[in-house]
Amino acid sequence: MRRDIHQQRHGQSRPDSNDHLFSTHARAVIVQLLRCGFRPDARRWRGGIEGNPEVTISIYDASVGVFVPYLRNLSGLLDKGVAYAETRKFNPAVLLGMRLAPNMYDLAQQVGEACRHATVAPALLAEREPVALPVLEHDMAGLQARIATSIEFIESLPRAAIDAAAERHVFFRLKNGTELPFTGRTLLLTFSVPQFFFHVTTAYDLLRHAGVELVKRDYLGRK
Amino acid sequence: MRRDIHQQRHGQSRPDSNDHLFSTHARAVIVQLLRCGFRPDARRWRGGIEGNPEVTISIYDASVGVFVPYLRNLSGLLDKGVAYAETRKFNPAVLLGMRLAPNMYDLAQQVGEACRHATVAPALLAEREPVALPVLEHDMAGLQARIATSIEFIESLPRAAIDAAAERHVFFRLKNGTELPFTGRTLLLTFSVPQFFFHVTTAYDLLRHAGVELVKRDYLGRK
Repeated sequence: MRRDIHQQRHGQSRPDSNDHLFSTHARAVIVQLLRCGFRPDARRWRGGIEGNPEVTISIYDASVGVFVPYLRNLSGLLDKGVAYAETRKFNPAVLLGMRLAPNMYDLAQQVGEACRHATVAPALLAEREPVALPVLEHDMAGLQARIATSIEFIESLPRAAIDAAAERHVFFRLKNGTELPFTGRTLLLTFSVPQFFFHVTTAYDLLRHAGVELVKRDYLGRK
Repeated sequence: MRRDIHQQRHGQSRPDSNDHLFSTHARAVIVQLLRCGFRPDARRWRGGIEGNPEVTISIYDASVGVFVPYLRNLSGLLDKGVAYAETRKFNPAVLLGMRLAPNMYDLAQQVGEACRHATVAPALLAEREPVALPVLEHDMAGLQARIATSIEFIESLPRAAIDAAAERHVFFRLKNGTELPFTGRTLLLTFSVPQFFFHVTTAYDLLRHAGVELVKRDYLGRK
């Protein structure tokens, strides 16, 4: 992995390494184009590299690439909640009804919102219908299934369609019916990613508040 | 603004719109290159467009572009905490000492951590020393100054240096001295952005838990 990154950087800093791909005539033409200010996209020259362009973040990496690992971390947080409930001999479903304030969502709803934002944004970006998630129930197995379904759905979406969505107009429909207009890029940066982290963090905060022994690495994921 | 986006999309979907820029000969050469699978980067053709490339998210937009507005939102959350304390006639500094669990950071420390992640990550990306923030104190004015200093610092960093950092190796030094290795891109996606939102959200959660009347839009920012 480390070696791959090194090779990519190496290739980037030495465009001449592509010389063998072109005839002398083609090279002369390319040099002329470059002199005129024409700058090809480095990642296309190398062709075979899957995925990430070198100098930016792809829409896929900033959405599916973030939501999937943090949904897995969220699942791990719930597992630790269940283990805590078993040790202290209470029903884990009690945790799911806890709130930090009377008019905030409870833990089950925080998990539900994390899944909603993690599935709706990639669906909008890929121009697909979001996966139909069942009515939210206050049981741990149901929430774990919800997280698994969300991960499976967003991993099934085509990378290319999502990566092409940066400038596309998308509309996020709130529960009250209001449609918020975004481009694919602004949907992620200003709305869906912040919303997603809000609900994952609040789930963590609720569990910590309830006494579950978690550390920051449970939120960030074990490396 | 809307018109600009439309024009960009329009330009992107009709590469022929650049025909007038090239001689017949140059066009023939370009057509040949395109037939060989050579794909220029659309944003370079149009040259003058500042800032965001069309099909991806720039490192700057995913770091400074996210941290600045959410630091402002964090500042607004503290203002609402102060207003609440005044209405209920208690010292706002009491809020800053509140925690959701005995071994979690208190509100002042959550704000401190949000500022730390928001300044260290862009400094690493831009290869600058992070701004020196004063010792954390539990007073509202000090925290507001800390947020203002953080915003001023990251807004002073050069966009181009940050945008060039996607593949550069950077090391994030934890408080215990451990250095975590990242590339610029993985620093943002897997660590600094999740950390930043963790601390802003936990500040929000703490204030809600303390009774301050906030709504989600105070976290997301007023549009």
